[in-house]
Amino acid sequence: MDRKALFQLLSDVQSGDMSPTEALKQLRDFPVAQLEGASLDTHRQLRRGFPEVVLSEGKSDDELHRILGSLYDRHQNILFTRIDAARASQLVKQYPGGEVVPRGRLLVYRRQPFEDLGRGMVVVVTAGTSDRGAGTEAAVTLELMGNRVERVEDVGVAGLHRLLPHLDTCRAAEVIIVCAGMEGALTSVLAGLVDRPIIAVPTSIGYGVHFGGLAALLGMLNSCAAGVSTVNIDNGFGAAYAASLINRRRP
Amino acid sequence: MDRKALFQLLSDVQSGDMSPTEALKQLRDFPVAQLEGASLDTHRQLRRGFPEVVLSEGKSDDELHRILGSLYDRHQNILFTRIDAARASQLVKQYPGGEVVPRGRLLVYRRQPFEDLGRGMVVVVTAGTSDRGAGTEAAVTLELMGNRVERVEDVGVAGLHRLLPHLDTCRAAEVIIVCAGMEGALTSVLAGLVDRPIIAVPTSIGYGVHFGGLAALLGMLNSCAAGVSTVNIDNGFGAAYAASLINRRRP
Amino acid sequence: MDRKALFQLLSDVQSGDMSPTEALKQLRDFPVAQLEGASLDTHRQLRRGFPEVVLSEGKSDDELHRILGSLYDRHQNILFTRIDAARASQLVKQYPGGEVVPRGRLLVYRRQPFEDLGRGMVVVVTAGTSDRGAGTEAAVTLELMGNRVERVEDVGVAGLHRLLPHLDTCRAAEVIIVCAGMEGALTSVLAGLVDRPIIAVPTSIGYGVHFGGLAALLGMLNSCAAGVSTVNIDNGFGAAYAASLINRRRP
Amino acid sequence: MDRKALFQLLSDVQSGDMSPTEALKQLRDFPVAQLEGASLDTHRQLRRGFPEVVLSEGKSDDELHRILGSLYDRHQNILFTRIDAARASQLVKQYPGGEVVPRGRLLVYRRQPFEDLGRGMVVVVTAGTSDRGAGTEAAVTLELMGNRVERVEDVGVAGLHRLLPHLDTCRAAEVIIVCAGMEGALTSVLAGLVDRPIIAVPTSIGYGVHFGGLAALLGMLNSCAAGVSTVNIDNGFGAAYAASLINRRRP
Amino acid sequence: MDRKALFQLLSDVQSGDMSPTEALKQLRDFPVAQLEGASLDTHRQLRRGFPEVVLSEGKSDDELHRILGSLYDRHQNILFTRIDAARASQLVKQYPGGEVVPRGRLLVYRRQPFEDLGRGMVVVVTAGTSDRGAGTEAAVTLELMGNRVERVEDVGVAGLHRLLPHLDTCRAAEVIIVCAGMEGALTSVLAGLVDRPIIAVPTSIGYGVHFGGLAALLGMLNSCAAGVSTVNIDNGFGAAYAASLINRRRP
Amino acid sequence: MDRKALFQLLSDVQSGDMSPTEALKQLRDFPVAQLEGASLDTHRQLRRGFPEVVLSEGKSDDELHRILGSLYDRHQNILFTRIDAARASQLVKQYPGGEVVPRGRLLVYRRQPFEDLGRGMVVVVTAGTSDRGAGTEAAVTLELMGNRVERVEDVGVAGLHRLLPHLDTCRAAEVIIVCAGMEGALTSVLAGLVDRPIIAVPTSIGYGVHFGGLAALLGMLNSCAAGVSTVNIDNGFGAAYAASLINRRRP
Amino acid sequence: MDRKALFQLLSDVQSGDMSPTEALKQLRDFPVAQLEGASLDTHRQLRRGFPEVVLSEGKSDDELHRILGSLYDRHQNILFTRIDAARASQLVKQYPGGEVVPRGRLLVYRRQPFEDLGRGMVVVVTAGTSDRGAGTEAAVTLELMGNRVERVEDVGVAGLHRLLPHLDTCRAAEVIIVCAGMEGALTSVLAGLVDRPIIAVPTSIGYGVHFGGLAALLGMLNSCAAGVSTVNIDNGFGAAYAASLINRRRP
Amino acid sequence: MDRKALFQLLSDVQSGDMSPTEALKQLRDFPVAQLEGASLDTHRQLRRGFPEVVLSEGKSDDELHRILGSLYDRHQNILFTRIDAARASQLVKQYPGGEVVPRGRLLVYRRQPFEDLGRGMVVVVTAGTSDRGAGTEAAVTLELMGNRVERVEDVGVAGLHRLLPHLDTCRAAEVIIVCAGMEGALTSVLAGLVDRPIIAVPTSIGYGVHFGGLAALLGMLNSCAAGVSTVNIDNGFGAAYAASLINRRRP
Repeated sequence: MDRKALFQLLSDVQSGDMSPTEALKQLRDFPVAQLEGASLDTHRQLRRGFPEVVLSEGKSDDELHRILGSLYDRHQNILFTRIDAARASQLVKQYPGGEVVPRGRLLVYRRQPFEDLGRGMVVVVTAGTSDRGAGTEAAVTLELMGNRVERVEDVGVAGLHRLLPHLDTCRAAEVIIVCAGMEGALTSVLAGLVDRPIIAVPTSIGYGVHFGGLAALLGMLNSCAAGVSTVNIDNGFGAAYAASLINRRRP
Repeated sequence: MDRKALFQLLSDVQSGDMSPTEALKQLRDFPVAQLEGASLDTHRQLRRGFPEVVLSEGKSDDELHRILGSLYDRHQNILFTRIDAARASQLVKQYPGGEVVPRGRLLVYRRQPFEDLGRGMVVVVTAGTSDRGAGTEAAVTLELMGNRVERVEDVGVAGLHRLLPHLDTCRAAEVIIVCAGMEGALTSVLAGLVDRPIIAVPTSIGYGVHFGGLAALLGMLNSCAAGVSTVNIDNGFGAAYAASLINRRRP
Repeated sequence: MDRKALFQLLSDVQSGDMSPTEALKQLRDFPVAQLEGASLDTHRQLRRGFPEVVLSEGKSDDELHRILGSLYDRHQNILFTRIDAARASQLVKQYPGGEVVPRGRLLVYRRQPFEDLGRGMVVVVTAGTSDRGAGTEAAVTLELMGNRVERVEDVGVAGLHRLLPHLDTCRAAEVIIVCAGMEGALTSVLAGLVDRPIIAVPTSIGYGVHFGGLAALLGMLNSCAAGVSTVNIDNGFGAAYAASLINRRRP
Repeated sequence: MDRKALFQLLSDVQSGDMSPTEALKQLRDFPVAQLEGASLDTHRQLRRGFPEVVLSEGKSDDELHRILGSLYDRHQNILFTRIDAARASQLVKQYPGGEVVPRGRLLVYRRQPFEDLGRGMVVVVTAGTSDRGAGTEAAVTLELMGNRVERVEDVGVAGLHRLLPHLDTCRAAEVIIVCAGMEGALTSVLAGLVDRPIIAVPTSIGYGVHFGGLAALLGMLNSCAAGVSTVNIDNGFGAAYAASLINRRRP
Repeated sequence: MDRKALFQLLSDVQSGDMSPTEALKQLRDFPVAQLEGASLDTHRQLRRGFPEVVLSEGKSDDELHRILGSLYDRHQNILFTRIDAARASQLVKQYPGGEVVPRGRLLVYRRQPFEDLGRGMVVVVTAGTSDRGAGTEAAVTLELMGNRVERVEDVGVAGLHRLLPHLDTCRAAEVIIVCAGMEGALTSVLAGLVDRPIIAVPTSIGYGVHFGGLAALLGMLNSCAAGVSTVNIDNGFGAAYAASLINRRRP
Repeated sequence: MDRKALFQLLSDVQSGDMSPTEALKQLRDFPVAQLEGASLDTHRQLRRGFPEVVLSEGKSDDELHRILGSLYDRHQNILFTRIDAARASQLVKQYPGGEVVPRGRLLVYRRQPFEDLGRGMVVVVTAGTSDRGAGTEAAVTLELMGNRVERVEDVGVAGLHRLLPHLDTCRAAEVIIVCAGMEGALTSVLAGLVDRPIIAVPTSIGYGVHFGGLAALLGMLNSCAAGVSTVNIDNGFGAAYAASLINRRRP
Repeated sequence: MDRKALFQLLSDVQSGDMSPTEALKQLRDFPVAQLEGASLDTHRQLRRGFPEVVLSEGKSDDELHRILGSLYDRHQNILFTRIDAARASQLVKQYPGGEVVPRGRLLVYRRQPFEDLGRGMVVVVTAGTSDRGAGTEAAVTLELMGNRVERVEDVGVAGLHRLLPHLDTCRAAEVIIVCAGMEGALTSVLAGLVDRPIIAVPTSIGYGVHFGGLAALLGMLNSCAAGVSTVNIDNGFGAAYAASLINRRRP
Repeated sequence: MDRKALFQLLSDVQSGDMSPTEALKQLRDFPVAQLEGASLDTHRQLRRGFPEVVLSEGKSDDELHRILGSLYDRHQNILFTRIDAARASQLVKQYPGGEVVPRGRLLVYRRQPFEDLGRGMVVVVTAGTSDRGAGTEAAVTLELMGNRVERVEDVGVAGLHRLLPHLDTCRAAEVIIVCAGMEGALTSVLAGLVDRPIIAVPTSIGYGVHFGGLAALLGMLNSCAAGVSTVNIDNGFGAAYAASLINRRRP
């Protein structure tokens, strides 16, 4: 209920078209509805074309089936994240049309043609082959959210020269997502060379005192080069969502 | 040395205006110069109006004096970060014209009039009175980097109703910076209500198992609401820099 | 042995009905018995209707069978916690009548009709679908301990508007249990809106720097809203037990 | 604005005593006001007699003076927490009538006579002499919030016999607060002997791998005896607040 | 080579029975042999009756077979620690006569009759059923090292009264080993009641912020009761070895 | 009250010399007294000659004065631990006769002549000069508790040859205390060479990832040489107390 | 492109053999090529005989097959690290000629005869049987990189005498690699006895508060003996690579 | 006592010039002396020109005075590490001739002319101005140990172009020491560009989740570029010592 509707209601009360009792009933849930409006409706408007997203991890097979069943007939894109290929294939058997993306642990139902909603493009940079998982999660999510995406792969710091030919691509991006494991130094190097906002995704690729990605995360949070902000380990989806909000043309 | 200059050089060699030996000498440092160009010149162009920034922590008084001395006569804004009021006042005595900002631990020399370089405005939200330090560091930095800034203060989760009147302001922002200590829940609440990119600044405000800001940082990295990326504890400057890159109109 | 029994014993000695030697024998274990009385008998009186509780984790199948065998013929409720469905089903095959609750990792033998022993009701709030495990463990435990329980589900901070319609239910509770993973911000939000004691259960739902629930735990211990106390990660049982002690009518 | 006032407003619109425009203006902030009502007014009613609480840590002297100045003329109790004796004495010099409590790092302005708002009494147990700081913070807070308080001191586990004479006192409590440093074992021992809800306050008393209270906190969160919930290290105030909510007679 | 042998060698050189060259050859490894003597021979003398101990974890099946093969024909007790029942049974099939102790993850070949080498007895106390694994490892090791052992089980702090009847047994011990998980409070309680040296074994029994035994370890290292020293988590063998050194009659 | 006294009481009741009411009164506190007896009286008997120990850290000057005042006139040794020289000197000014031991942060009032209560001697080994603080705390405590003490200093692993001449001394000890900072390797080396029980004291001497003694503690808890148990960082007193219990001749 | 080639290019432009446009095209990627040259070509020259190294962990079977396929026909040594025997055997089936080294989790294709490229020899010392995995990874890597290797095994600190006979071997090494788990004390002991550079490899062998190798790593980083530098846990390859750079004769 | 001396002794016994008893006496401490010889004498020979090193931290002023007094008259270089300027100046007042190096927290007494003992030169690279402390500690130590040193400063990753001109210097080094705080990425970048052994010194320069240097340390231990080994945080001395062993010409 927006201001206009509220004024109409008050006018109806004034004109006698609505009784105060009826108006009170409608207003009873006003705060909740308004707040819901604030978060949901505005979201929906802005999120035009955004997919329904289901975090699969920690949900039972039954729950995933039930959720997919309830979403299947809508004309909206559906994105299952953190789903392994076996579970995804099971779902696709019952609900055809889904695309399994094992490298990104994703299951995608594309129901809407791609519409470019962004100011420009988002570049997804991955340091090593093993970081491609997070990169794929980010890239697919970005595309489903209406962003043009370019990927730059295998440009880790150990072979810095491989990064340099891609600097122009990076400089052309509205926002860059960097996925890196080990010590995550690629983030600092790139931030020192390119004046674009960077969202860093530490990956869990490493061993020993890598602590499942903690070393990369700390490297990124302590980056000596400014312009970097960071998301949780392996959170390609979160980086893509934040990048979408940055890239999205204002309505 | 850009492509045009390089072509000129080659033409000069062809025409005999320059010997191969002289050209070789000029090209010797080409990669470095080019790379330096990549990072410095491009930076400078993009960073038009950006202040010179000096991280004061870990530098001796002498070093700060020397650095300020070398910058003082340029017509550029100068920003000292992480400098306590006493040290800052010492510097101002010798080099007049600086503005000491104790709450943000800043010293500012404004030499350039404010020029709005942004697409829109940046909103800096602080949860509690004690988080204002980081908020001030962010806000002053933002302004020096050519951003219009609006501040929303004391809207912590414990009094959620205080946040609601400011939602429209937040929704109008290009990007939002949220500074919060304790458990940092304000970030998640705001990200759930507003569809704008949020850069979260965990502050060191807390005690016990707050671990000097670690609890707030973890809260933000684990936020259940998407669209959030995070910087290091108390890093208001870093958040402002990243927000500036997001808000900056492309050249 | 209480004071009355002790006086009777002394009177029997005085009257010659009991020899000092016999009395000494009875008194020999007096301190232990008294202390045992302190903890056991008082407990039993207060715990009228409380189930026998068996923590299943870390016990072998044989041990669980033996324990259930020794409890099976008593007319008391029995609660196995932290037991997966497979083990529970095995036990039920041999000892019929048990109810397996996979979502809460529980096995329940109900031998006593529900008796409301509380001052009021306990509300169990869960933030996300995945937090329902801890919520179920808490709710079933609460009910077996004689509490009326109401559940509020899927009211995480990312969709704050879903929480608001349940505020009246929460305010009506004697005590509220909040189960939340990720950053656990729901606890702070609810504590800011409702003036009831809250027992927070951090859940292990999350990844990366969630550290298996540690992030949620820290969020709750650092809550900027007062009135919250916390139990161990995923400890729905412990929260329910503490809530039962709070809700229980004094004898 | 409650439902009655809202119906009156609608009736005024119906009767023409108020124009829709005026009504709209009043309703404009309705959601916020209502939510504020939800949290603030309800709080205030429940918190009848509750003191104004000011967390002093992280605030400048000026800020504390300004806050006290704004509260000083109200007829409400005022409680400054985490304030050292020197700062507190400074405040009292300018604003007479305050009571400095160095052991609990408190400053109290008592403006209201004590009114017992509780169902029963709260017992505050401290393990060692050094834990008295947290105990005092809890006890003074409790009393200001309208609870009868009894203190049991120096009953650490190393001298278990000193605890036993106080078991009856503990069993008579509505809720018990246990403050303990070192390994915090007192909590488990007491929870095993007494069937009352226990709020555990780990204190920072210890050294080496005590990690400033972390060892005690872990001890309490892992307590093998049920019925315990825990607050942050040294958070006597938080424990007292939670205990007040438990002990408070329902309106 | 001891002093006596060394003097004989020198005398042989003096008398011409041995050439300096031959003596030099024998003395070449003297330091090593002497040091080896220091550690090995002295050890062997003191360790009269001690078993050969093989830490099985991290060794392949082949390696265990080979090691057992080389020890099998000696008339010495053999103790495999940290070996699961399946691997142990495999070994026994090929090398009969071994006793598999699943609860303590041990495999024992007893070749020597028990000989009491101690000053007195060692008491092994376990807090909960689940702690019996470490307790069994300790008890079997102790017995193989020539100690009389008494076990006290299921006397956790949650049921303090169960501990009291065993205090006399504990006081009669030369040294006590306490195995406890969760918060490990039993150690402090016992150390407060009994004036005997206590070696604490934290066990990995627990969940959440128990961190696989770390909480119990910290509880023990921070014990407020003196007389406690601690070994690594689940290190029943190490505790037994240290207790054997304490209990052993001096030669 | 022991068994004999209890039998006398019952006989008095039988003979009519005491009324049941009077006996009940005496028995009322029986459990506590008995338990107190268990811990206190037995302790005192065993602790014949033990000093009164006051942990000074975390106590105010006033509290220390008051405690010393109450102990000063008894004919018992008094030991203040963790007290810096300045505070100690203040106390000695008012209460003459105390010996300040700055290196061990101790204050000692010797009222009783040394009496050797041990089976043998305790050796205190310190790795580096900086570890002498913990060593001194241990050595003075040991002596006050009736142990003959020998000290071996500056025998760190970096100069292994300096340790070897002291092996015989170490082997002659009933129990050895090893104080070492850095990586604490001395403990493992000594345990590999000497078959005596070793109590390891990690010291806080180190920097960087020494984490205030944590590295040394972990080194000791993970020692590859058996026979070692460990106390908290810098806890020379605790090691001495445990060593005293081991060395003490049984009554 | 090196200086010579660059001069040739410029001469060709001067002589008219190459147009400025063509030269520009070749120079376009000059910086990258030069930098690539810096890192790759120089590397290749120095790394003469170095194997191609593939980190197998985190790569799929398909990816490994594809990589091996692309390398198989070159006349270069190939080294797969962190590959378990099963995966390695699969690869060898399709691409014959590989040597599976299960203990070091390696797969080696030797295509070049061993050529000694070092100044001297590298000694690889392992503390316990279980540390041989890291030792094997280091030794095989060293040899493939053209180093003479000597191994010293099972010389842990618990049996110090076993180390002494190998001191001369160690002193003869250009550089020593020490692989040790548990507390890693062998590193300090050896560094105290031998004046050669030591690269320490902490291994994950241990349990409890070993934290998967962290205790050993801390022990090595805090070594009281100078001359030690450290690599990540179980990183035998990294130690071997660093040792190769030290041992390699300069070109 | 070396082999030659030992043979002489045996010959003396054979010839009757020495009695077996006298020989025994000389041999009594043989193992120790030999071992001492092993570590000390060899060390001394190798360490020709090495300074006496005194770690000042954790030593009292008196102790430092005493140590300097005992070394002052020898003709050896003396190096005090981790000594602040004030303490150092005090020492120099009493013992003239010392050079205070505040930036490296060093005090140096140069008694020997510099003698180049190395194969080549050692390069010390520092990332930022604040890292110069560790760099100075390393450089001065290196020089006192007979190494030619070159320093490369302020070449942090944020300005990568500043590093490139120094690559040739780095490639010419026998070994490189890299001192870097923040995320320490410089190490990886340099290791990817230069084929020389690198010893990484993480510095404590940083804040928030830098954890006093831990983030930099983790970055270095997890470096994706091979050839790096690491020392403790701020341990410039240790890095210099290890580099000296690498650079030192073999005797």
